[in-house]
Amino acid sequence: MRTRVTDLFGIELPIFAFSHCRDVVAAVSRAGGMGVLGALYFTPEELEMELKWIDDHVDGKPYGVDVVMPASYEGADFPPEELVSRLQGMIPDGHRSFVENLLAEHGVPPLSDDADPGKVLLGWTDATARPQVEVALRHPIALLANALGPPPADVVELAHAQGVKVAALASTPRHAVKQAEVGVDVVVAQGTEAGGHTGEISTMVLIPQVVDALRGAGPDGSDVPVLAAGGIGGGRQMAAGMALGAEGVWTGSIWLTVEEADTPELAKRRILSATSRDTVRSRSWTGKPARLLRNEWTDAWEAESSPGTLPMPLQFMLVSDALRRIGRSDAAELATFPAGQIIGTMNQVKSARDVVFEMVEEYIEAMERLGRITES
Amino acid sequence: MRTRVTDLFGIELPIFAFSHCRDVVAAVSRAGGMGVLGALYFTPEELEMELKWIDDHVDGKPYGVDVVMPASYEGADFPPEELVSRLQGMIPDGHRSFVENLLAEHGVPPLSDDADPGKVLLGWTDATARPQVEVALRHPIALLANALGPPPADVVELAHAQGVKVAALASTPRHAVKQAEVGVDVVVAQGTEAGGHTGEISTMVLIPQVVDALRGAGPDGSDVPVLAAGGIGGGRQMAAGMALGAEGVWTGSIWLTVEEADTPELAKRRILSATSRDTVRSRSWTGKPARLLRNEWTDAWEAESSPGTLPMPLQFMLVSDALRRIGRSDAAELATFPAGQIIGTMNQVKSARDVVFEMVEEYIEAMERLGRITES
Repeated sequence: MRTRVTDLFGIELPIFAFSHCRDVVAAVSRAGGMGVLGALYFTPEELEMELKWIDDHVDGKPYGVDVVMPASYEGADFPPEELVSRLQGMIPDGHRSFVENLLAEHGVPPLSDDADPGKVLLGWTDATARPQVEVALRHPIALLANALGPPPADVVELAHAQGVKVAALASTPRHAVKQAEVGVDVVVAQGTEAGGHTGEISTMVLIPQVVDALRGAGPDGSDVPVLAAGGIGGGRQMAAGMALGAEGVWTGSIWLTVEEADTPELAKRRILSATSRDTVRSRSWTGKPARLLRNEWTDAWEAESSPGTLPMPLQFMLVSDALRRIGRSDAAELATFPAGQIIGTMNQVKSARDVVFEMVEEYIEAMERLGRITES
Repeated sequence: MRTRVTDLFGIELPIFAFSHCRDVVAAVSRAGGMGVLGALYFTPEELEMELKWIDDHVDGKPYGVDVVMPASYEGADFPPEELVSRLQGMIPDGHRSFVENLLAEHGVPPLSDDADPGKVLLGWTDATARPQVEVALRHPIALLANALGPPPADVVELAHAQGVKVAALASTPRHAVKQAEVGVDVVVAQGTEAGGHTGEISTMVLIPQVVDALRGAGPDGSDVPVLAAGGIGGGRQMAAGMALGAEGVWTGSIWLTVEEADTPELAKRRILSATSRDTVRSRSWTGKPARLLRNEWTDAWEAESSPGTLPMPLQFMLVSDALRRIGRSDAAELATFPAGQIIGTMNQVKSARDVVFEMVEEYIEAMERLGRITES
């Protein structure tokens, strides 16, 4: 298989695998695709260790890093040293008591005194994502991806100066054009069925619109290549994404249940038994709409007693401790996490390598079937 | 192009076109696809006239009729002669005054005394849909489709006894299996991006699940063929639907703006200028979730002051007069109607014939592109 994207990165298969787990990233790259490590949960020091590990285990194959740099957010004007405390002051008491009450109702205990303090801001402000970018660019990465809109122009320049390609996720054709304008090399057009931060338009409708919007939008009037994301779990979906005009596919949720994934056991079990109706687009995680496993946590934020969610990054600052407490408790009914509709199709644990190879096999079968339809 | 569905109906192209407009139905069937007339808005007498017209203009090509028979609904146990008055009595006064106030705020005048009384129940109860089925089966139709779940088993038998194939719309694999169990010949798997009554799962995720669920579920262990619906507007989407495992595509919204369509001018203009983000899944039309053009009508039902929607068929009984009044007023901001996300792609009026031919042309181009990717 050869597309403009396999040429761009020198990879065998136009399959991109987003994962927070370094083992998955390395395994997919070794299998001929491109693993992309989600940096969001790591401090710069942790990220350094993860990337070092990947460098040692990826057999020289290309891999990428994904950061979350929003174009604008609450508190963006505060000086970095004051950022967290000023933002904390913006969270209303009513919201704090809503969260405390919800946890009390479900018998979730407080964290022990010796629990590590956790991360209330994560990497989704410019101030916290930039150090991640700096760490990433010290490693031989092939791709720097941004999960929330166009990355800052100087970050694109910095990456390009080191020969690193830049990708960004878009959920509307308008977003995609903005990303092309700042010099992004690949646009990941992501449909609403995707897990995590996601827009409203489905993959089926979105991909051709983005492909058409990016015609001639690249350097020297070239077409900016598009990866199809959202609902891609197997080879038929990969074939569909390519039929829609994409040069490859970007996948995420399907790596949550592979053997290599360090997904908590409880979450793995929930995903394996879930249907495609068990997710919901909710602001209850970060303040921006993200597709999550639907459960009593997401329902509580939609209920009449809900105070409503706060804007990014306040919502996660509000709920981060609560989510850690839930994760360490028996309140499985409150444990949510980003997950796409494709989880309804995932009911078996396989190795990352097998997922890649089965996808290719199914892709080839789909192509053969399509050939028979047209020939006859 | 040849699939199990083109063989089943003796048609050249596996393109099904749902429309309330007889001209569109006849034009698509004449172009080699299969027009399917939505019977919902017609009395049995009106339906008789529409089908007579199609018989006279379809050049002997196959066409279909689509009815809306829910498996269960409020008031299903009332004797037919009491049905409307008993159901009217179930609508709370608070809901009636919410609608009246909304219309007053937007300056929508009452209907004139000589306006025809309208239809408060339409064809979506068994009592009102059955006469439509009887009328339809007196015409040389090739397909009887049901838009809400599995049709009653005796209706399937009645159709089969006359050599008429039966299709039903499914939005989950579980629905699809139920439909196969009552003997449906073709399942239309419809993703959430579709206009009108629709589920939650996207087309990209749903189609392979339904195809897999229907393996061996037909007579003598055959696979029940699937049509892909939801977000299908062009040849790339058609190719994607087929790549996902469908034997053809079912389209709806794209026919709203063709030359032949009798869509009100205002609605046509709104659709041509809309983006794919201008629709919303709402219960405000019929009580069941349906994707509609998003506007001040759909927003009002989501607002804090909303009394909430009523179950089918009460909601439409509540709002039918209001919708007619809005349609005859200048309150364009309240005029909603079923529309899928594909409306963001539709910005030009074409003939139905050209839409069909352009779809086929784009399909062939998509196939050629896919061929180049695999060969290289």
